[in-house]
Amino acid sequence: MGHMTEILNEIFLIFFAAKATGWVFQKLKQPAVIGELVAGILIGPYAFGWLKLPANGFAEVLAELGVIFLLFSVGLDTQIGSLKSVGKTAVMVGVSGIVLPFVLGSGLVYLIGRPTPEALFVGAALVATSVGVTARVLSDVGLLKTTEARVIMGAAVIDDILAMILLVIVSGAVKGSISLTQIGAITVMALGFVIFVATVGTRIARAGAPVIENFETTHEPFVLSVLLCLGLAALAGVIGLAAIIGAFLAGMVVAETSEHWDVEMRFLSLKEFLVPFFFVVMGARTDWRVFLNAEILGLAAGVFLLAVLGKLIGCGWASRKMGFRSASFIAVGMVPRGEVGIIVASLGLACGALPADMYSVIVMMAILTTVAAPPVLERIPIRRVPEGV
Amino acid sequence: MGHMTEILNEIFLIFFAAKATGWVFQKLKQPAVIGELVAGILIGPYAFGWLKLPANGFAEVLAELGVIFLLFSVGLDTQIGSLKSVGKTAVMVGVSGIVLPFVLGSGLVYLIGRPTPEALFVGAALVATSVGVTARVLSDVGLLKTTEARVIMGAAVIDDILAMILLVIVSGAVKGSISLTQIGAITVMALGFVIFVATVGTRIARAGAPVIENFETTHEPFVLSVLLCLGLAALAGVIGLAAIIGAFLAGMVVAETSEHWDVEMRFLSLKEFLVPFFFVVMGARTDWRVFLNAEILGLAAGVFLLAVLGKLIGCGWASRKMGFRSASFIAVGMVPRGEVGIIVASLGLACGALPADMYSVIVMMAILTTVAAPPVLERIPIRRVPEGV
Repeated sequence: MGHMTEILNEIFLIFFAAKATGWVFQKLKQPAVIGELVAGILIGPYAFGWLKLPANGFAEVLAELGVIFLLFSVGLDTQIGSLKSVGKTAVMVGVSGIVLPFVLGSGLVYLIGRPTPEALFVGAALVATSVGVTARVLSDVGLLKTTEARVIMGAAVIDDILAMILLVIVSGAVKGSISLTQIGAITVMALGFVIFVATVGTRIARAGAPVIENFETTHEPFVLSVLLCLGLAALAGVIGLAAIIGAFLAGMVVAETSEHWDVEMRFLSLKEFLVPFFFVVMGARTDWRVFLNAEILGLAAGVFLLAVLGKLIGCGWASRKMGFRSASFIAVGMVPRGEVGIIVASLGLACGALPADMYSVIVMMAILTTVAAPPVLERIPIRRVPEGV
Repeated sequence: MGHMTEILNEIFLIFFAAKATGWVFQKLKQPAVIGELVAGILIGPYAFGWLKLPANGFAEVLAELGVIFLLFSVGLDTQIGSLKSVGKTAVMVGVSGIVLPFVLGSGLVYLIGRPTPEALFVGAALVATSVGVTARVLSDVGLLKTTEARVIMGAAVIDDILAMILLVIVSGAVKGSISLTQIGAITVMALGFVIFVATVGTRIARAGAPVIENFETTHEPFVLSVLLCLGLAALAGVIGLAAIIGAFLAGMVVAETSEHWDVEMRFLSLKEFLVPFFFVVMGARTDWRVFLNAEILGLAAGVFLLAVLGKLIGCGWASRKMGFRSASFIAVGMVPRGEVGIIVASLGLACGALPADMYSVIVMMAILTTVAAPPVLERIPIRRVPEGV
């Protein structure tokens, strides 16, 4: 059997396992992404062992492309203009939902004697609410049009932006662990890149869109978006940032053009094919056996608890003026972490800041918060907006 | 700079070069695919040398996925039912357009003293008309609705099927070069697989489509199509066939379902992203320097001439009853080779049957036939069908 045949068999195995398990989880009313992670844990080296990693490098490359296109589409959902409309409450919910989990998470890890970089990465992995999971749940229970839902979605978008900035700072701090000056320099450069693309880039996009529309050739906006996404991802890598930050910014830039719906539609198939490789690879790297150790199991429980409490207290406090029920609803709606937490953890694993056991703890936290929040959310009675409004 | 950053840079380089050159070629009224091949030649190791091959294997994996999805979509355009309607002329044009180029091409290579496997692969690379290029040209000049165009499209579809069967036989003959019995056994098994999927598979698809429609989850037909495509491609590889044959058959199976338009639409983005990797890698493997050798240049001219004459005489003769102008139009319309010729050549290169110089000759033949035919086609005066008919 040739080399390419083996690779094709593994590509089929990964995609089949992801979609089959994802389908089962969807039938169990769980997000498909959790199914894909579980598929990775199952076929990975620590369970059935059908998928060996690194798999000639190809699975990692497809996974990297998948997460780049995933973060591009998260950026595509992040329109700067829409942040203005959600108001002060959403900003406060977003910000205090970042601060408390970060402080609690990194505090715990630091207190049990782990190194500072590890504590910083755990904190960063605990901050970002999964926009995708939350939107799906709110839509499933028919509450997407309530004020509470708009606050949650607005806060989740602010969350994403702050999480990316935090990731830049944490990565910079971990890399430049030599001097405070270097940390400062890296952070300033990184923030400069982020702010430049997010402000000037989006303005160029808005001004340039009519020019692009005259390009005539079909699929031009899609191709240009892929180019911008890959280009900024590569550039981010070159200047020492995570590639996903470039992809996220590229998405924010395209979000300002009039073609962003069309681009989003056409990215769907790319994501549908490539994103499962990311979650399966992330699942395969998760060593479930670390939880047989009582100490790690306790740590996982602690991280999970702080991840939940951080959002509940932080976001509930920030929205307290809306009343107890609404504040509870918003706070629970902000709990699911999903993809961004796992992405941050995978970067920590890749740069050596997170050891394998802590990586597995974060993946477990992401799975549990994502699975636990929706059933609770459905049971909080808030005023429903009548259909068709 | 990390390993993944380097890979991302090369992915961006390949995609950017492909799209930029493709765009220039489209402005010159040439098919984008030729531009992508030229991009590969330019950035490849024999010219500027920016792209090294093998590129950690990732470019080859993306190229393989690209050609698999490309052949899937060629299969998707191959509806068995539509062959019945184009009639006897199309079948005759298709068949004699296969036989003559194969005999002429392999004959020439055999006569100049090259080994039999090489002769067989050159013959096989000369047979298949590029449906995509032809359809685009016919549509550009507003002649897609003429009888001549329907004959060309029908014949090109028959061409594709026969080319795949021929590829199975040639690969079998080259591999099992030990005994005639083995050649026979491989051929029978391969043909059995092709015929089984093409007949029973398409019937199952037609019967099973209503069941699949009840799966509820979004994008289900697309995901199932990707699974079938990757699955049959991997299976083809396991039983010793080219993966693209499995992908082509998967496309034929999905073509029989009521969802084939939807699936085709959703495959567009995947193809748009992955197919350029195939043509850039194929271009990068083309050593233009072989044409500095007068002997190889003569050989290239001979292969090009026979590729053109084979189709002109074979297809012109088969359609002679339609009158000189129509027969000329059909014959010229069948000349462009494009992707399938290059795919066959790449398989010959991979299995060692084609040496690098002959591979470059085939790529040149595919480029020249694709570039030369359309301007001639536009100048043959056939009766236009009035607009809106």
